[in-house]
Amino acid sequence: MSPKITTELLKQLRQVMRSPKYVQEPVQAYIVPSGDAHQSEYIAPCDCRRAFISGFDGSAGTAIVTEQHAAMWTDGRYFLQAAHQMDNNWTLMKMGLKDTPTQEDWLVSVLPEGSKVGVDPFMIPADQWKRMSKALRSAGHDLVPVKENLIDTIWTDCPQRPCKPLITLDLSYTGVSWRDKITALRSKMAERKVLWFVVTALDEVAWLFNLRGSDVEYNPVFFAYAVIGMNTIRLFIDGDRMMDPAVREHLQLDSTLEPEFRVQVMPYGSILSELQDVGAGLSLKEKVWLSDKASYALTEAIPKAYRYLTPYTPICIAKAVKNTSETEGMRRAHIKDAVALCELFNWLEKEVSKGTVTEIIAADKAEEFRSQQKDFVELSFATISSTGPNGAIIHYKPVPETNRTLSVNEIYLLDSGAQYKDGTTDVTRTMHFGTPSAYEKECFTYVLKGHIAVSAAIFPNGTKGHLLDSFARSALWNCGLDYLHGTGHGVGSFLNVHEGPCGISYKTFADEPLEAGMIVSDEPGYYEDGAFGIRIENVVLVIPAETKYNFKNRGSLTFEPLTLVPIQTKMIDVNLLTQKECNWVNDYHQKCREVVGAELERQGRREALQWLLRETEPLLRTQ
Amino acid sequence: MSPKITTELLKQLRQVMRSPKYVQEPVQAYIVPSGDAHQSEYIAPCDCRRAFISGFDGSAGTAIVTEQHAAMWTDGRYFLQAAHQMDNNWTLMKMGLKDTPTQEDWLVSVLPEGSKVGVDPFMIPADQWKRMSKALRSAGHDLVPVKENLIDTIWTDCPQRPCKPLITLDLSYTGVSWRDKITALRSKMAERKVLWFVVTALDEVAWLFNLRGSDVEYNPVFFAYAVIGMNTIRLFIDGDRMMDPAVREHLQLDSTLEPEFRVQVMPYGSILSELQDVGAGLSLKEKVWLSDKASYALTEAIPKAYRYLTPYTPICIAKAVKNTSETEGMRRAHIKDAVALCELFNWLEKEVSKGTVTEIIAADKAEEFRSQQKDFVELSFATISSTGPNGAIIHYKPVPETNRTLSVNEIYLLDSGAQYKDGTTDVTRTMHFGTPSAYEKECFTYVLKGHIAVSAAIFPNGTKGHLLDSFARSALWNCGLDYLHGTGHGVGSFLNVHEGPCGISYKTFADEPLEAGMIVSDEPGYYEDGAFGIRIENVVLVIPAETKYNFKNRGSLTFEPLTLVPIQTKMIDVNLLTQKECNWVNDYHQKCREVVGAELERQGRREALQWLLRETEPLLRTQ
Repeated sequence: MSPKITTELLKQLRQVMRSPKYVQEPVQAYIVPSGDAHQSEYIAPCDCRRAFISGFDGSAGTAIVTEQHAAMWTDGRYFLQAAHQMDNNWTLMKMGLKDTPTQEDWLVSVLPEGSKVGVDPFMIPADQWKRMSKALRSAGHDLVPVKENLIDTIWTDCPQRPCKPLITLDLSYTGVSWRDKITALRSKMAERKVLWFVVTALDEVAWLFNLRGSDVEYNPVFFAYAVIGMNTIRLFIDGDRMMDPAVREHLQLDSTLEPEFRVQVMPYGSILSELQDVGAGLSLKEKVWLSDKASYALTEAIPKAYRYLTPYTPICIAKAVKNTSETEGMRRAHIKDAVALCELFNWLEKEVSKGTVTEIIAADKAEEFRSQQKDFVELSFATISSTGPNGAIIHYKPVPETNRTLSVNEIYLLDSGAQYKDGTTDVTRTMHFGTPSAYEKECFTYVLKGHIAVSAAIFPNGTKGHLLDSFARSALWNCGLDYLHGTGHGVGSFLNVHEGPCGISYKTFADEPLEAGMIVSDEPGYYEDGAFGIRIENVVLVIPAETKYNFKNRGSLTFEPLTLVPIQTKMIDVNLLTQKECNWVNDYHQKCREVVGAELERQGRREALQWLLRETEPLLRTQ
Repeated sequence: MSPKITTELLKQLRQVMRSPKYVQEPVQAYIVPSGDAHQSEYIAPCDCRRAFISGFDGSAGTAIVTEQHAAMWTDGRYFLQAAHQMDNNWTLMKMGLKDTPTQEDWLVSVLPEGSKVGVDPFMIPADQWKRMSKALRSAGHDLVPVKENLIDTIWTDCPQRPCKPLITLDLSYTGVSWRDKITALRSKMAERKVLWFVVTALDEVAWLFNLRGSDVEYNPVFFAYAVIGMNTIRLFIDGDRMMDPAVREHLQLDSTLEPEFRVQVMPYGSILSELQDVGAGLSLKEKVWLSDKASYALTEAIPKAYRYLTPYTPICIAKAVKNTSETEGMRRAHIKDAVALCELFNWLEKEVSKGTVTEIIAADKAEEFRSQQKDFVELSFATISSTGPNGAIIHYKPVPETNRTLSVNEIYLLDSGAQYKDGTTDVTRTMHFGTPSAYEKECFTYVLKGHIAVSAAIFPNGTKGHLLDSFARSALWNCGLDYLHGTGHGVGSFLNVHEGPCGISYKTFADEPLEAGMIVSDEPGYYEDGAFGIRIENVVLVIPAETKYNFKNRGSLTFEPLTLVPIQTKMIDVNLLTQKECNWVNDYHQKCREVVGAELERQGRREALQWLLRETEPLLRTQ
């Protein structure tokens, strides 16, 4: 992959940073955050402004351009990718390394006295604005909102904002009607004595109304905001899609409903002025609830005294704890997903040695097998199909320039998943189609030990996920190995494959206490730059555990793997496993045989079934 | 122990809360924090205001008194003790439990509209003031500084502030002269472009000047502040103690030094006005560095624009990383401490069955043996000598009303330590002098497994301590057991037995990355209310580890136990240990034999040596 040449673009951006047409006063620095106006992690092409200006298109990163410099902050998953995609105009700031300055510290070190730092107020979360503004102010600079997005002014061929049809989800998928969700939300609002709730995150809008969309690739969401009052429901959404009879029926738009459940549909672009009206009409002690991750623009629409900000909204927390309909749907989705992967790996085993299978072909084949499954909608993220050194690029996506051919001499890492109407999947398997080296097996086995340590962990109800992160690393640490990413993220139910508010990470920010019904990934890894990558990922459900003493009735939790795909035993150095770990692998494989085997049988996929049976032969320790 | 009757005191306090003699306007609530004007954890009798008003004298707790209520916030270590010591006027707020309100939330729920909440501005750290003030303001209340301490106005027999002689420490103990410490500090100040540094924590003043005192029991510190400029040193300290020739010589007060190393001695009480003068004399871009834990009163003395606040000062961080002289001193101190405990446990083994040894007698005996050791100064904290149900009171201190007699039927827990001129110790051993039950052994063994898991952990350089906390809990968690305290705290070098900025805890507040030379405790436990307490504590030194792959040259760390006291093998269910854990115990005991055995031999303590040899017989797994 060759880097994007950005010299001309940066020149143009620096011009508009000084142009009275766009800025009241010149700005000496301009921040281009990663997200969209909803602070989404995955975004539509029209929102890929940071990729447009820099070339770096990973899912996380912030660009800052000054008169003299252009710098990009991103995390360990993307160090290699960002270095490949950006030209020499850009400095890579490796977040998480000791000597990397924060954005604020860097700005203070490079800016002339009394500088103005501009940002689109819709693109920056309120909490981040606050932190950054304070740091800049204390150094004599100003963070200023620039109404017109300066990237958009130079992005002549910017794509249109998508506005695709909606999918309605009935009770068999969601378990709870949207009316009951609104009622539950209003009771949380009453508890906190707030009159209004502003829904800004796209997956929260989708979850609340039991609707799905496809405005953002891989994420079944649609561009919309909602403002919920104690007696009103306003949905800000554009397009013909609201004329679809199924949607009208689902939202009961044409019925005479009780007034408090009547959904008023309003234009997407009117959210700011509507919120300003709400803000202006408030009287003493009336509060408006927003996430502190909502955009600075929307937060400012409500006068400070009337804001009630929390890091996680009640929708975010309710969405994270899956009900029985949702967990049953997730189980079904994962069985179908396993069927597709058994087909894929069986096919790869036969084809790789021919030297004709590239990373892209393998990824396409995986999609093909998945799309044969019932209720398949789309992939849940860009398939990471990587072999040899590409595996060390943690969020690698094969493109023609980098596309390697799979071989019997290199490790192959496949991290992929799909959206089914009944659930979202995300699974990583690392395979060798020839004979792995002793070192590759050693590393793989440490990663597996970490995976098992988390998956089999027992912990008290309400434990925060960050306390489990080092279980995943202990075996690697003992040999002086580590990986520069968290161990797990929350997973949505036919929603975003990354969702808050829980996770398993040494970082402690997305970290609401774990409770039964939450779903997270368990995905330790090890990456040897220039050589290979290893990752073993299951999606796991938090379930009650049985323990001898049950934490004085506080309750015990553990995980149940939802992902049921064999872990390649050829890669395991069985003598590095304890007997307990060995039993875990054998029990897991037994379950794959029973559950996925039955489904392969039902679908008449005999060859894949034979592959599954071969791959799930019990391990035996020899020492 | 019977609770303190506080009805009359609370009545008096509520009177002064309304009295124009002490408050400009009546305050509807008054906060009594735990610390002194230096935000110390352990305090002098004259600063025990919270204990005076409530009866609860644990080392952590905040009292809030309103017209109608009196409430006490404390953590899991003190739930039982606080409940015992306080009368019915008080509500115990159990911090860390899910349903316990924060102080702010509670105040908002009980106060009438537009209330004033008073606090002594010297007693509240600036960061806490800020948080609390903001929360109260957003609910329509005000946090107000009350100059006169309201507890002092009703505390008629309040003891005098101590002003004891100082101890000077030479290079053989400290490794670095105070002048070199000042020079290093000034270079940190220059890096951050600050002109002044205010030293407010008592242990930081003591460390910086290589002086020790005894103004606060167990903590070899003295009441003082310091203000360091680029060319000036001001030490705010009272008393004749500055006339001591040894101190004058040590600080070179009577020599003609280079001006930048001349120590100006000023009255302790003049710090506020001096700081206000410093603040008034600053010009643009001149900054004053303070800890954000410094008192609100001192922080406010510097105008906001001139403050440079950090959670940890460079002194705090430099102090935590011990140099070779300090670690060698700590090793010596721990060997002497082990000698004293071998003597004690040998004596207890003979005496307990006679039924004449009480908790207080055992604690006194421990002190007696310690005081026989070279360079002994005092204990490092109040000895926790507890048997049977008293062991479950985590920070128990025996008093005549609770004093139990040790017996062959109950578990005995001794958590004790001393200050030696060469180091500070803190060790907990849990013993049974008869035959422990299977359940007691089971619990003890899980605690031991947790202790070993931390002590033997290998982790990359720069790992934060909170990531190691769950290693200590994993074995307990597997059976549904846990403990409600952190796993370890920083330990000073002939300084406070609890010091920042590192530790091992599920709480993430005192958590600077671990590096070689830091010293922390490793002390998991298990407590069965009304029955027994178990804790196994060593002080451990962070040292480089040898690993196969060394984290790509980032460096590997592990711990070396400084404490060398046998762990009672009678309490271990050896079949619950892995072979590795069993080897750890045997290797540890072998080291105790070699190192402490040699010292017992040298000191001619033959009987204690025999005890050591018996107690360190290797374990054998039978399964």
